Amino acid sequence: MTIQSFFPPQRTLMGPGPSDVSPRVLSALARPTIGHLDPCFVAMMDEVKELLQYAFQTTNKFTMAVSAPGSAGMEACFVNLITPDDTVVVCVNGVFGMRMIENVNRIGAKLVVVEGEWGRAVDPQALEASLKENPQANFVAFVHAETSTGALSDAKTLCAIAKNHDCLTIVDAVTSLGGVELRVDEWQIDAVYSGSQKCLSCVPGLSPVSFSDRAAEVIQNRGIAVQSWFLDQSLVMGYWSGEGKRSYHHTAPVNSLYALHESLVMLQNEGLENSWARHKTMHDKLSTGLAELGLDFIVPADERLPQLNAVYIPEGIDDAKVRNFLLNEYNLEIGAGLGAFAGKAWRIGLMGYAARNENVTLCLAALKEALKQ
Amino acid sequence: MTIQSFFPPQRTLMGPGPSDVSPRVLSALARPTIGHLDPCFVAMMDEVKELLQYAFQTTNKFTMAVSAPGSAGMEACFVNLITPDDTVVVCVNGVFGMRMIENVNRIGAKLVVVEGEWGRAVDPQALEASLKENPQANFVAFVHAETSTGALSDAKTLCAIAKNHDCLTIVDAVTSLGGVELRVDEWQIDAVYSGSQKCLSCVPGLSPVSFSDRAAEVIQNRGIAVQSWFLDQSLVMGYWSGEGKRSYHHTAPVNSLYALHESLVMLQNEGLENSWARHKTMHDKLSTGLAELGLDFIVPADERLPQLNAVYIPEGIDDAKVRNFLLNEYNLEIGAGLGAFAGKAWRIGLMGYAARNENVTLCLAALKEALKQ
Repeated sequence: MTIQSFFPPQRTLMGPGPSDVSPRVLSALARPTIGHLDPCFVAMMDEVKELLQYAFQTTNKFTMAVSAPGSAGMEACFVNLITPDDTVVVCVNGVFGMRMIENVNRIGAKLVVVEGEWGRAVDPQALEASLKENPQANFVAFVHAETSTGALSDAKTLCAIAKNHDCLTIVDAVTSLGGVELRVDEWQIDAVYSGSQKCLSCVPGLSPVSFSDRAAEVIQNRGIAVQSWFLDQSLVMGYWSGEGKRSYHHTAPVNSLYALHESLVMLQNEGLENSWARHKTMHDKLSTGLAELGLDFIVPADERLPQLNAVYIPEGIDDAKVRNFLLNEYNLEIGAGLGAFAGKAWRIGLMGYAARNENVTLCLAALKEALKQ
Repeated sequence: MTIQSFFPPQRTLMGPGPSDVSPRVLSALARPTIGHLDPCFVAMMDEVKELLQYAFQTTNKFTMAVSAPGSAGMEACFVNLITPDDTVVVCVNGVFGMRMIENVNRIGAKLVVVEGEWGRAVDPQALEASLKENPQANFVAFVHAETSTGALSDAKTLCAIAKNHDCLTIVDAVTSLGGVELRVDEWQIDAVYSGSQKCLSCVPGLSPVSFSDRAAEVIQNRGIAVQSWFLDQSLVMGYWSGEGKRSYHHTAPVNSLYALHESLVMLQNEGLENSWARHKTMHDKLSTGLAELGLDFIVPADERLPQLNAVYIPEGIDDAKVRNFLLNEYNLEIGAGLGAFAGKAWRIGLMGYAARNENVTLCLAALKEALKQ
């Protein structure tokens, strides 16, 4: 059989990511490929770095995009900073906290878990208690915006507690970056990673990361080699660094970086605070509509992520049937539940370019129809 | 300062990769993003798998694209197959063999190096001698097409020797796939990885890999967790596998996979043998022209890669000046030397869509002019 060219349908992406990608970003993506050591490309990388510093609200020199999806960004933060001698406190309140545990275990470091309720923010008091019980802990890790439940944790407070106990902080900002307030420097985050395909509305495949000076020092002074060559950030920095000659490490995903650049230019033009406000406005409108449809949120109102709205599937409603109806009749994707909420919830994303008036209204109208089927 | 949208120049890419990307592939890249669990996308992934099986000449079920560049594909092969108890014979004849050593060391496995001359094919007799001296060895790894020197090794013979000594084989086919004969099943290759941005002429950022049934068995029965969560292929296969429900592991680089699909459709339409022949024809034409310019190849004629032509920089010629002239006056990129050949050689790529008559003629004419500057 001869395989033909692939033409995807035009969907509206309101799941947990990838989110809708704007025509501007798709257009940037398709610009002619140039070499990863081309002076024009290297200059563009410097701009990506500067734009990421703005998005993360940081002056960290060690800011770049990992050439792989968010889960590789997570792994880059863990394997570069942590050695088997370290003790890491991981706060878990969903799937992505569980993944942090996987990372710590595969490093062979000592692990302390702060078990939280799925669908709630991480409890600062539980972290405080755990750090008192484990004075040897030197890292605290948690998820700022838990994509599996839609819970937003108070990263500022959690980092302040970690700092009081002299711990470095690792924060998952995959779904938060660009969608809610995130201030890496002010909040004293030492390592943060995100994904290109959430509130930045870029194509999936890149993971913006940033390391504080203190984290960079830890990486540079670790006694043993990082277990991953591909993710060894001290080598990668030789390529991303603005100082002097760039040394080849791996071939950068050139076109995806064009797209990331464009999505960050759009964020810069809108303004970070305006982007946060837009996500909130769209969320309020969606919430009102979901309440009218009788759908209940998993997360209490004051701990909700605007960009990821997880609601319980009503009794007697067929999960797959509703999602298939939306996809087939409206080319509209909403997300299924994940982990503990598989089959029990839907996740409606309002991320980046998807967080628009027309999408909210379409989603509510289509969902109303779907629930009647 | 406000950062503006980025518009790259239109280059002709005749370096060591990325290679020229055809307008068809760029057009596929920019098609609307859909979800990584969308039924349409999953069906496309099945086609990518089938097309990769054709390109690799394999029936391996365990065939897919790693969501990151070739160096991550290399690491995926090593960390999934090898544990600290294993002994790996690595044949080194350039930069990418050295990188294999890095991988083995970071796993903590026992390493045996077969040191070869840079610029020459791997010596089968040296491998044979090493395996006789090291009967405990259970893996043999080598680079089929050494991108740092342009040397092509006899993968068929090397694998046959490894098999005689009951070793599994790991082969770097980053630059060979699609450009020269490569027959994964017939040659008994157990693990092979490539890159999207070489002779497939897709955008950089993906690494096609394939594992034999024997390799898959080793992966499934390894006693300890793979040190990388992101590259844990038994988890990744839950997403790529055609059987039953796809389980989410990480968000696939959706648009890059559109591009890979299109580049593989183009390879299928041209025919694999025709693609190999085209690379050879263009290489012969380029070789003749380079000889007329008085440029000498690093690699002896019968060990040369058609798609990567490394020539010595003549005495008295300024390396950077020539490459900058080509880039600035002709938008033509050729590669600098790498590793032992840094500053001593140029690497002229004829990969995939770049292996065209017009490129060869342009390159020779521009180079002639540059050498006179």
